[in-house]
Amino acid sequence: MNILVNGSPGTVIDALDRGLQYGDGLFETIAIRRGRARLLSLHLERLAAGCRRLGLAVPDLGQLEKEIFTVAAAAECVVKVIVTRGGGVRGYRPPVSPTPTRIVAAFPAPAYPEGNASQGIRLRICTTRLARNPAIAGLKHLCRLEQVLAQAEWHDELIAEGLMLDDDGLVVCGTHSNLFILAGAGLLTPRVDRCGVAGVMRREVLRWAGSHGITTCETDLRPQQLFTAGEVFLTNAIIGAWPARELDGRPLARGTIAAEFNRWLDQG
Amino acid sequence: MNILVNGSPGTVIDALDRGLQYGDGLFETIAIRRGRARLLSLHLERLAAGCRRLGLAVPDLGQLEKEIFTVAAAAECVVKVIVTRGGGVRGYRPPVSPTPTRIVAAFPAPAYPEGNASQGIRLRICTTRLARNPAIAGLKHLCRLEQVLAQAEWHDELIAEGLMLDDDGLVVCGTHSNLFILAGAGLLTPRVDRCGVAGVMRREVLRWAGSHGITTCETDLRPQQLFTAGEVFLTNAIIGAWPARELDGRPLARGTIAAEFNRWLDQG
Repeated sequence: MNILVNGSPGTVIDALDRGLQYGDGLFETIAIRRGRARLLSLHLERLAAGCRRLGLAVPDLGQLEKEIFTVAAAAECVVKVIVTRGGGVRGYRPPVSPTPTRIVAAFPAPAYPEGNASQGIRLRICTTRLARNPAIAGLKHLCRLEQVLAQAEWHDELIAEGLMLDDDGLVVCGTHSNLFILAGAGLLTPRVDRCGVAGVMRREVLRWAGSHGITTCETDLRPQQLFTAGEVFLTNAIIGAWPARELDGRPLARGTIAAEFNRWLDQG
Repeated sequence: MNILVNGSPGTVIDALDRGLQYGDGLFETIAIRRGRARLLSLHLERLAAGCRRLGLAVPDLGQLEKEIFTVAAAAECVVKVIVTRGGGVRGYRPPVSPTPTRIVAAFPAPAYPEGNASQGIRLRICTTRLARNPAIAGLKHLCRLEQVLAQAEWHDELIAEGLMLDDDGLVVCGTHSNLFILAGAGLLTPRVDRCGVAGVMRREVLRWAGSHGITTCETDLRPQQLFTAGEVFLTNAIIGAWPARELDGRPLARGTIAAEFNRWLDQG
């Protein structure tokens, strides 16, 4: 495992870091494919936007990019970047001039079953819900206990992802992915301005669809709509798009959009 | 600063610890007064209950108690205990057999103005809201970005605390305290089963009130109710009870319950 902490090789951080103490920070999970950092500009852009929303100094993105390639020793791997508000006195109030902590770590590429992309995955609906908070919605912040509890709900390896609902029973996303469904000739994806993460692959799908004549809409989505959809798929930075073929044991319609998007992504 | 990490002196933790990566853990903030750990049994009890709710192994509480007194070098200080789900592979799903991380750190007692307890404090209402999630409500978990953003809202030192509302505009608590109001002859405090923290001092006030013939009720509370209350006060493990004398510039009625409770607490 290669890790850089504030630019230097290291495996530890200050026990008083606000990232640990309060979840006061952000992260990015970046796919390294054939030695290239996929969607890197979108990742860096989102990180910078997140820092601005939290009132954190935006790290030097050129430096960060160098660090990403320094840790990414393998041609196929995953690099996770964490930026926290750093140390400081005890108490929630952010220090006036925080010194952010930057952690850049490489991990082996996850060994997902080949069939996830080609045959589609099985989904379930999680009991753990997502709380609505527009103040932090969309951000890839460090407060992920909801996702931890949701993933702890099931151990059946044949179910590749769980969908998470909000207070009102609207479906927002997967535990670690965004959701798209084909309704008529257009793609719908849940809005992420009340809860959920604005994923970079989600953004890429929206962009790709727009340039391929497919209308898109960020909207409220009910779980039942998945059963009448022409296609359902999940996205994240590592997996690209996985079509879904089953939700809680009931079949979902199969389409071709996820496969087309993956093909395009692979050529990118 | 004295810190024990897993029982050994240290100032750092693993950069991959799930406490940092996902906010996957809990904490306690304990007041050391005259060399004694105030409400220690309530703190340990809440920590153990929180671990059980998160599916975390409960730490050896006897060992933890020893560590608290080891770091608490001063007769008057604050000890913060953090328990996380420890390290593990990347991904939200908790490892099957996690090895929790335990951090016990002593901090100087905060120098709050003398008048906070005797004269009462000024309050404001925060713009940042608390999201409702019964799955993690009441827990003193590490995901505290809402509180961080709420405390970042103001810098007027004359305002000692901000109140936080939930989605529905109900007042839940302060950024780092619980709220009580006197309505008629009884004490009301917001319920903490949808959001907010079930504070140990809150619990102690409820117990004290019960044994002093004061009825109590955990309920829904609207901000306007503070203006018609006979008394308003905030509690946490460090401050005890602070009466409030002003909310957003409007005066609040003054009573004697907070002072009586503090007197009782000081003798405890």
